Amino acid sequence: MTELKTVELRAPYLIFLGEETSPTYAKTGAGIAHWRKQDCLAQLNLEGGTVDIGLPKMTVSEAAKQGAKTMIIGTSAVGGSIPDHWLEVMEQALEAGLDIAAGVHTKLNDNPRLSHAASKFGRELIDVRTPPKNIPVGTGRKRSGKRLLTVGTDCALGKKYTALAIDQALTDKGIDSSFRATGQTGILISGSGMPIDAVVADFISGAAEVLSPDNHQDHWDVIEGQGALHHPGYAAVSMGLLMGSQPDAFVVCTELGREKVKGWPDFDLPSIQDVIDRTVDIGKRVNKNIHCVGISVNSSAFSEQEAKAQMGQLEKQYGVVVVDPIRFGVDRLIEALIES
Amino acid sequence: MTELKTVELRAPYLIFLGEETSPTYAKTGAGIAHWRKQDCLAQLNLEGGTVDIGLPKMTVSEAAKQGAKTMIIGTSAVGGSIPDHWLEVMEQALEAGLDIAAGVHTKLNDNPRLSHAASKFGRELIDVRTPPKNIPVGTGRKRSGKRLLTVGTDCALGKKYTALAIDQALTDKGIDSSFRATGQTGILISGSGMPIDAVVADFISGAAEVLSPDNHQDHWDVIEGQGALHHPGYAAVSMGLLMGSQPDAFVVCTELGREKVKGWPDFDLPSIQDVIDRTVDIGKRVNKNIHCVGISVNSSAFSEQEAKAQMGQLEKQYGVVVVDPIRFGVDRLIEALIES
Repeated sequence: MTELKTVELRAPYLIFLGEETSPTYAKTGAGIAHWRKQDCLAQLNLEGGTVDIGLPKMTVSEAAKQGAKTMIIGTSAVGGSIPDHWLEVMEQALEAGLDIAAGVHTKLNDNPRLSHAASKFGRELIDVRTPPKNIPVGTGRKRSGKRLLTVGTDCALGKKYTALAIDQALTDKGIDSSFRATGQTGILISGSGMPIDAVVADFISGAAEVLSPDNHQDHWDVIEGQGALHHPGYAAVSMGLLMGSQPDAFVVCTELGREKVKGWPDFDLPSIQDVIDRTVDIGKRVNKNIHCVGISVNSSAFSEQEAKAQMGQLEKQYGVVVVDPIRFGVDRLIEALIES
Repeated sequence: MTELKTVELRAPYLIFLGEETSPTYAKTGAGIAHWRKQDCLAQLNLEGGTVDIGLPKMTVSEAAKQGAKTMIIGTSAVGGSIPDHWLEVMEQALEAGLDIAAGVHTKLNDNPRLSHAASKFGRELIDVRTPPKNIPVGTGRKRSGKRLLTVGTDCALGKKYTALAIDQALTDKGIDSSFRATGQTGILISGSGMPIDAVVADFISGAAEVLSPDNHQDHWDVIEGQGALHHPGYAAVSMGLLMGSQPDAFVVCTELGREKVKGWPDFDLPSIQDVIDRTVDIGKRVNKNIHCVGISVNSSAFSEQEAKAQMGQLEKQYGVVVVDPIRFGVDRLIEALIES
């Protein structure tokens, strides 16, 4: 039997930022430099580009000489097709021995110039939105090791950030932990993962099983959630991810003040209790020990004082730790997780 | 905006049965002949083939002369590749002006001889496991018309048969109804549908929305369920189908005597009550009127007397009509549906 594979990148990285001037569009590059500094060699700005993600600036050939293995497209400002002058730089990178990885909508592998160059120089174009082949159907078999999944009341409210922060805090405490990415940005940040929302329906829970394989007893897989079980568009991906992740612990992510599903204004946000109840109800099928270990909020719409007041109220109401990872860190959540 | 499309076949059909001698492997062909007799022109057996699905026997050219529009592969006995002598008959069919449709694992479109012939003669090869392109993300918008979804305690226990029988019974009573197929056999039987388990994760509920579009107020869409919400491998597809179908009514399908999930022996079958509760809990997000209208059982493991006793007990326990569509028909279920 061949080993089951996730999408994987080779470090160290050269982060390509094009001529980007807005940090907003260079979030992916900044995320990689923030969360995986040890894997980052340098950044590459084209003429006019001003975004600085805090890495040494190098050309393709400088980075190649210093051992760069993969050039990651760290800017999302790509429209319908990849501009010609980018293609030139990419061809140089392939010729210099680097793979190229990207999460942009236009697939690298669909570009004839790039796929020709990659094949000529024996390098890889890694579209992190493309799932690996031969994903199996989920078995439901209980795997060894411990798992935490971030779930949400909605999309785009901190499931990835929360998981990255928990993984980092566990590692800082000397606890063995792996961040398991399920979306393109998470995969680019962590260097491997499974683009779960691009997997074919029948194989979603199987893909989640591949993502967090058997591990030693004290190891934590911290799995990035996707979608939301109450989401009118994306509930299916959350269902498959929950079944396949068989988490011991989960954290509910939400945004203080958000009342409607983002982009679906006819749908109220579910209550945190609804999310806890449904997650436990479904998750206990594959892990009888599943429990909510805390709530992670994005409180940016409120003053620090008001945020603390609302978080205190949620702690009373739900009887679990409530954190804002960006504002106040996740230390209290880690304590609760260790005690749980 | 282009019209959203499901997979669709053109009637009348010539049902290709190869040299099949076992009715078991010709179930698809027999199903089409049973449920859509009005769309079937003829059957085609190759030399040595003995399976009779009750249609006139014709050659490709005879069927073409009488107006056949699509040759459907009605036997599932295809291994790794399509045998050469089948390819000859298929090429004749394409040349004679017929499309070819199949639900077999080896895709027709991946066969160079067939795709060459199809393009030469301007005909279509319809792999009903291949979803249409450009499926949107689910919106959750409430559509007009009425919808019934068959759900299950497991896979392979009568969700398709139950939906077909309900659609047929509604039609027989003069009630406007459409069977909405979600799997390859259902699509071949009904001539259109959405292979929901082959749709990419992010678009499952959107695909279900495309499958049962707005309709007039008294029209019933009877939607074929897939997987099961408690299934360790296939829960995601059931979740997306439920969200996108926004059913008013659902029927729980189960098999009397089945205690474990088929093929997943470590998993107990969920109780019917668990299935009802979870279906209502999830479904009410998109349709506040969702309710269980009945239970459909496969009672074939028991004598008629024993089956009736068990079904009577279930009626008492759950307070809804219990039917076995194959053994006793669905008339009582239709009455309950009309009254509900």
